[in-house]
Amino acid sequence: MALRGGIDLGGTKIQAAVVGARNGVRGEARVPTPKDGGPDGVLRAMADAIKSAAAQAKVQTSDLDGVGIGSPGDVDSDAGTITNAYNVVPDWNRTISVAGALQRELGTRIALGNDVRVATNAEFELGAGKPYASLLGVFWGTGVGGGVILGGRPWRGRGAAGEIGHMVVRRNGAKCPCGRLGCMEAYAGRKAMELEARRRHHGGEKTALFKLMEKKGRTALTSGVWADALEDEDKLAVDLVERALAALGAGIASAVNLLDVEAVVIGGGLGTRLGDPYVARIKEQMHPHLFVDARPPAVHVAALGDLGGAIGAALLVKS
Amino acid sequence: MALRGGIDLGGTKIQAAVVGARNGVRGEARVPTPKDGGPDGVLRAMADAIKSAAAQAKVQTSDLDGVGIGSPGDVDSDAGTITNAYNVVPDWNRTISVAGALQRELGTRIALGNDVRVATNAEFELGAGKPYASLLGVFWGTGVGGGVILGGRPWRGRGAAGEIGHMVVRRNGAKCPCGRLGCMEAYAGRKAMELEARRRHHGGEKTALFKLMEKKGRTALTSGVWADALEDEDKLAVDLVERALAALGAGIASAVNLLDVEAVVIGGGLGTRLGDPYVARIKEQMHPHLFVDARPPAVHVAALGDLGGAIGAALLVKS
Repeated sequence: MALRGGIDLGGTKIQAAVVGARNGVRGEARVPTPKDGGPDGVLRAMADAIKSAAAQAKVQTSDLDGVGIGSPGDVDSDAGTITNAYNVVPDWNRTISVAGALQRELGTRIALGNDVRVATNAEFELGAGKPYASLLGVFWGTGVGGGVILGGRPWRGRGAAGEIGHMVVRRNGAKCPCGRLGCMEAYAGRKAMELEARRRHHGGEKTALFKLMEKKGRTALTSGVWADALEDEDKLAVDLVERALAALGAGIASAVNLLDVEAVVIGGGLGTRLGDPYVARIKEQMHPHLFVDARPPAVHVAALGDLGGAIGAALLVKS
Repeated sequence: MALRGGIDLGGTKIQAAVVGARNGVRGEARVPTPKDGGPDGVLRAMADAIKSAAAQAKVQTSDLDGVGIGSPGDVDSDAGTITNAYNVVPDWNRTISVAGALQRELGTRIALGNDVRVATNAEFELGAGKPYASLLGVFWGTGVGGGVILGGRPWRGRGAAGEIGHMVVRRNGAKCPCGRLGCMEAYAGRKAMELEARRRHHGGEKTALFKLMEKKGRTALTSGVWADALEDEDKLAVDLVERALAALGAGIASAVNLLDVEAVVIGGGLGTRLGDPYVARIKEQMHPHLFVDARPPAVHVAALGDLGGAIGAALLVKS
């Protein structure tokens, strides 16, 4: 019984899954990303999460064929290291031997990959991208990440391909959390959306966003908070999501004009939370910018949802 | 002695070349694209041009291994047809059996390809792109065309990849000749630049552009007219070229953020005419938008210049 583990390492949560030979989920666990123990604390939480998922699947982690990890930051798969994963914990400002540490702790081999690529590959192999040989994965969450599959294989360029969130949709436009101007993410990333919401709220615009946030016991505008505000037809929330949809439409259409892929798969916290009706709106917003508008690409919501990252990470473990 | 012919079919001129086994040019001819004889007139001019290039190489066209043709419009290589090549002659609004007609006339086989892809491939195989396995070809002329080489091979998508000129650089921005808003070409295409120059000139801005045009016996602002105006430091010309450079910088950087290619090769009428100093400016304008700005791609002027299209077309003829 060949079981593999997968860990999706995020800034908010760590999601672990144990899957079988055909990638069915046999166990899963989810823990908040600890913010006060530095990278070591994060490694311990990752180990705990996968151990808990393994226990659910009634095995030890040393029984697993291996554990794959999808991570932000600079991932060096060969060296087994992750550098500068600031989004995970702010003091992850050096190179950490993640594979070595977890291999000792878990008693099985570790494979590392970039989180967005891992999630794109999961959708391509097992999810909404299965019918296609070329696709763009667009992960609409804190930032806007992208993965590129061309001719049935991931395209990595010189290692950094897929930065769809930093395609320019408005020259000299809004400031992006990356520091540049006019990036798609400057309008559509949840972090940028929150900054703009705070700015407008302080400027006097009314909104229930921050009350909803407190009611949910959150300190930031999560995807769930945005979804609730949209349901309440909160004007500021509606305006900022419309602005995000327009930016996503222009940026994704630009990418399609360049690559003419068969499909676009939209995932990420906001993408999966808001789901089909909003993905249909992104498709609408792409349309006026598509050069071959008579033959648009298919546009789907990521099918693997929240577990996609962890299942995709398990795909990193090769037999 | 294996000679091949190539024809670059453009809206302004038809350039023909005969090349040897190692792609050295043995004969060449250039004729203006006839505007009053419809597609048939264009076919006759293409035949005359390649016959004249063959005569220079001291052969008959029937002695050639074949003739390749790079063309705008919808090129169907398998069927040997070209449809809707409006930029060549406005009444080319149907499907023309170009390969069949020219094969009878020239006594050798004909291979058809898309003009921008042919030129990108020529730069990749023989020109400025030779050292690289991945590159973007950007053809800055009447419009802004693009070609994509990834992993040593052209990437075509579903047939229409490479429309870099219609990547959005300013949502709800300037109207593009394609009818859409905010495309890179709306700022950087020579046709769009001329429309804007005429609008501003009629609005009272001073410029020598149209005098230079008349002096050169032209009816449109050719790349040579723009070059002369820049040399004279004509304010309107400088402003509009700066605007084009900024749009090219943002659009090309967006494409690089998505694909992380090794190199960008800039050709086309304006690209090759303005050459290195302006290509250096495009590189500068890309920089603030590059996500991995510590490792920008190489940026080169197309090395094959004006003959690149015809030499590239000859590469379509396989032995």
